[in-house]
Amino acid sequence: METILCNNPADVKITVPSLVSLQKKQEATIVKVNGIEVGGSEVIIIAGPCAVESMEQLFETARSVKTAGAKILRGGAFKPRSSPYSFQGLGEEGLKLLSQIRKETGLPVVTEAMDTRQVELVAEYADMIQVGSRNMQNYPLLKEVGKCRKPVLLKRGMMATIEEFLNSAEYILNEGNDQVVLCERGIRTFETSMRNTLDLSAIPMLKHLSHLPVIVDPSHGTGLRWMVPVMAKAAVAAGADGLIMEVHYRPDAALCDGEQSLHLDKFTNLMSEIRKVAKAVGRKIL
Amino acid sequence: METILCNNPADVKITVPSLVSLQKKQEATIVKVNGIEVGGSEVIIIAGPCAVESMEQLFETARSVKTAGAKILRGGAFKPRSSPYSFQGLGEEGLKLLSQIRKETGLPVVTEAMDTRQVELVAEYADMIQVGSRNMQNYPLLKEVGKCRKPVLLKRGMMATIEEFLNSAEYILNEGNDQVVLCERGIRTFETSMRNTLDLSAIPMLKHLSHLPVIVDPSHGTGLRWMVPVMAKAAVAAGADGLIMEVHYRPDAALCDGEQSLHLDKFTNLMSEIRKVAKAVGRKIL
Amino acid sequence: METILCNNPADVKITVPSLVSLQKKQEATIVKVNGIEVGGSEVIIIAGPCAVESMEQLFETARSVKTAGAKILRGGAFKPRSSPYSFQGLGEEGLKLLSQIRKETGLPVVTEAMDTRQVELVAEYADMIQVGSRNMQNYPLLKEVGKCRKPVLLKRGMMATIEEFLNSAEYILNEGNDQVVLCERGIRTFETSMRNTLDLSAIPMLKHLSHLPVIVDPSHGTGLRWMVPVMAKAAVAAGADGLIMEVHYRPDAALCDGEQSLHLDKFTNLMSEIRKVAKAVGRKIL
Amino acid sequence: METILCNNPADVKITVPSLVSLQKKQEATIVKVNGIEVGGSEVIIIAGPCAVESMEQLFETARSVKTAGAKILRGGAFKPRSSPYSFQGLGEEGLKLLSQIRKETGLPVVTEAMDTRQVELVAEYADMIQVGSRNMQNYPLLKEVGKCRKPVLLKRGMMATIEEFLNSAEYILNEGNDQVVLCERGIRTFETSMRNTLDLSAIPMLKHLSHLPVIVDPSHGTGLRWMVPVMAKAAVAAGADGLIMEVHYRPDAALCDGEQSLHLDKFTNLMSEIRKVAKAVGRKIL
Repeated sequence: METILCNNPADVKITVPSLVSLQKKQEATIVKVNGIEVGGSEVIIIAGPCAVESMEQLFETARSVKTAGAKILRGGAFKPRSSPYSFQGLGEEGLKLLSQIRKETGLPVVTEAMDTRQVELVAEYADMIQVGSRNMQNYPLLKEVGKCRKPVLLKRGMMATIEEFLNSAEYILNEGNDQVVLCERGIRTFETSMRNTLDLSAIPMLKHLSHLPVIVDPSHGTGLRWMVPVMAKAAVAAGADGLIMEVHYRPDAALCDGEQSLHLDKFTNLMSEIRKVAKAVGRKIL
Repeated sequence: METILCNNPADVKITVPSLVSLQKKQEATIVKVNGIEVGGSEVIIIAGPCAVESMEQLFETARSVKTAGAKILRGGAFKPRSSPYSFQGLGEEGLKLLSQIRKETGLPVVTEAMDTRQVELVAEYADMIQVGSRNMQNYPLLKEVGKCRKPVLLKRGMMATIEEFLNSAEYILNEGNDQVVLCERGIRTFETSMRNTLDLSAIPMLKHLSHLPVIVDPSHGTGLRWMVPVMAKAAVAAGADGLIMEVHYRPDAALCDGEQSLHLDKFTNLMSEIRKVAKAVGRKIL
Repeated sequence: METILCNNPADVKITVPSLVSLQKKQEATIVKVNGIEVGGSEVIIIAGPCAVESMEQLFETARSVKTAGAKILRGGAFKPRSSPYSFQGLGEEGLKLLSQIRKETGLPVVTEAMDTRQVELVAEYADMIQVGSRNMQNYPLLKEVGKCRKPVLLKRGMMATIEEFLNSAEYILNEGNDQVVLCERGIRTFETSMRNTLDLSAIPMLKHLSHLPVIVDPSHGTGLRWMVPVMAKAAVAAGADGLIMEVHYRPDAALCDGEQSLHLDKFTNLMSEIRKVAKAVGRKIL
Repeated sequence: METILCNNPADVKITVPSLVSLQKKQEATIVKVNGIEVGGSEVIIIAGPCAVESMEQLFETARSVKTAGAKILRGGAFKPRSSPYSFQGLGEEGLKLLSQIRKETGLPVVTEAMDTRQVELVAEYADMIQVGSRNMQNYPLLKEVGKCRKPVLLKRGMMATIEEFLNSAEYILNEGNDQVVLCERGIRTFETSMRNTLDLSAIPMLKHLSHLPVIVDPSHGTGLRWMVPVMAKAAVAAGADGLIMEVHYRPDAALCDGEQSLHLDKFTNLMSEIRKVAKAVGRKIL
């Protein structure tokens, strides 16, 4: 269980833990989310609302993003909010709605677990469990999803180094679960004009060091709806194995993160633009 | 449950949530840790090892720091470590040792809970529950310690804004527990010569906005043993209501953070130096 | 000379100074560097060594990058180095070499001026004057290149906000010179595995606020040779009007920044890859 | 002219250049500013307005701060401003006013030079030349003040590492001028409630590595008038050899940085508080 140091003199100086390391396992890991493969030649698009709000909202959004080419549906039932007075999500009710929509649309579902006590419940309803940025170093939670037999979407902490990010993934693999997708979602810098600074260099760096798939969240990464499409394209050009984006059938009425959610028609347009970029870098989007 | 905006034009622009706000409650909150008052005129010193390792280690350290003037004993039983392969703490065994030492020395004990499922157990043995930096935005944990009737030591996340820090405290107060001590422990910056950058300006800023006591952790804040004393003095001059410091009877053999732990004799010397600074700014250390 | 505030509620909150603002002048500015147009539909590639070292080095590199499709040659004669003991550049001798190579290859030349007293000299030999990151807020230098009638390549400071960057450009335009190209070259964050963190979101943000062309420097932005190509492609996908890259005929013998300089053949390969990405986003590289 | 690496395993990993290194010269350097010694047992207070505005402003302020115990007068004649439309200082006229006030009050004067072409002029009028934060890596300027025979106040760049800061000082010493005072003035972090984050740990770190005196600027370091006194006291407790503070006879009418300037009476009160802290840490203020 030793760690491996990348110490080629002209290269990065990072200690990469053993199980996630590309030096230890040279072939790329493919994570299977109910039949959808993340980490292969196809760039997988995950889309949906920030928070699950209602059957109508979820159904209208899911149907539209599926038609446009999204392969996995996102939506939060448990929402980590900075303020205790913000909308905290529908909880189990939200999980049930997600599960119903999955049945109707056939889209696998990813949603967040925030508490070790929620993991079992979330795993019952969802196809993939998200560990959010604020919980990237919540080690009991990492261990719990590691014991679970569902794929995990691990988001980078907003102040996490690449080394810490890989160590957090190692916690999950160390419990026996190697179905982990890494997600860059913007880091915190001095810049105030955007919600976060999307660090696209994390994509090649993570792929240089690890065999795990890497996706990007341009919605949280920018916080600005108009900026999502261009950064989505840049992420694909930078080698992302997928994108996760907030899409809402009525962004202006969203209970959470409306200002960074794409309208349905914008998302559809974006999909055709991303396809061209994917092709230009030898990838595809079906 | 509304929030209060500090919008004096010549002042900071921060939205302070209601329960922690100094505008809502003008007198300073005194947090009582088994008889020890944090937030009064006395500067309270909390000292002890990073991790609980053994009866001998804990007893030798506790006896010495008590003699020097420490009022509360610190020591981790559950340790959040970046790597899954690092020492993770003694767990419940560690809590029992802490509890025994408390009986023998009379020192109240503060120790960390990392998981909602640990809160009840930790509360059984400890006098104060610590929520660590990495869990500052672990909202289920904040709610759980909020429901608990023990004082809470809330450490600032290493890249948390003042506003986020106060919102996390609000989560605890909102559950009915107003016995919260805020702890500045260094933030993450571009600087690499120290483990963190200790942000002493957080002390006056937090006290400008909130009625909660504020203490400082110069051990994690610097990561360098030789720098702890000078920053401890600066923290007291900046108005800290207390200090929490890592002290070990044999730092070089410590299982965790030895390089930032003070030797027993250095701690004793430091106490007499801090007393002078406390007096110079109108405070005292008994 | 008032400033213009972008205060659309769902948009960024930045005060953009008047002359650089897209609200004041809606059409994109085309900067002409001895016949080469930066800011049009063509993505302009600037390539060359970090520092001018010798006739042979410059000639071999220039000939190769020109064949591959580079339109402008870069090379430093005056080098800003963190240590006074590092190679400081050939000075005027370097400018003469650049000028000779321009004659032989027909490539326009961009090189840095570090001192107000150098501007006139640099303007004599070069087609475009670079103001480096460390001088982004060297206001006397900005005014001096503003009075000069040569196009200016203004690099973003490594800790500069978008607002400060635009204000620095405003200093140049305010002296009567509107031929300014903005260059994102990586910002400083907490991440230590790369030299800097390339902030590609600066491209759409700057283009959202200003009419000036924006190019990207993936060499300084990453500091790692193997990462330059992928980030170059991402920058083009993000809408960059050009790229500036360090290329050296013998990187391992380079007097400066060899570890981030591309070999000639890698650069040639990269050019054909970038062309595909440019085409995919509706741009071209001739 | 080699550099010296501090590589004690339990210590910081920084390469310290030779001339500024404490390993090379073990006794502390005393910088003499027209008879005032910076770096000795006395904590030297430098005070005055941000910018020189008028004879009356300068005289009223200078007289008052001198009475309170300030030993050197500060005031900018050339002002580096983010926007070209902000007040840029009175220029040579301001230098003349400073020189006159020096004659009348006997206070030595420190003022900034921003351009290599201004150094000679500033040196004619001032007792100490300031190199501002934005110019910390303006190497031609550092060399120019290095050739000059006046003491230099070198401010840390707002995102400069300790290593870069010491290298910039080395540029000055390498030209033959060892009369350099280092000044911590706040660094840029993610925190937005203050103008900068004052990094007091820079004081012990710089003194651990170098023999040069270190002072602190709590005015720019916080940007908030009410926070200046408490951070001034903390800086003295942290071992600062001096403080530089903005004081104005009418802060609300100041042309520059009024919101962080102290009123005359507050400064007088602060001086008596600082004296107590200085004494508590074995220093003095006469």
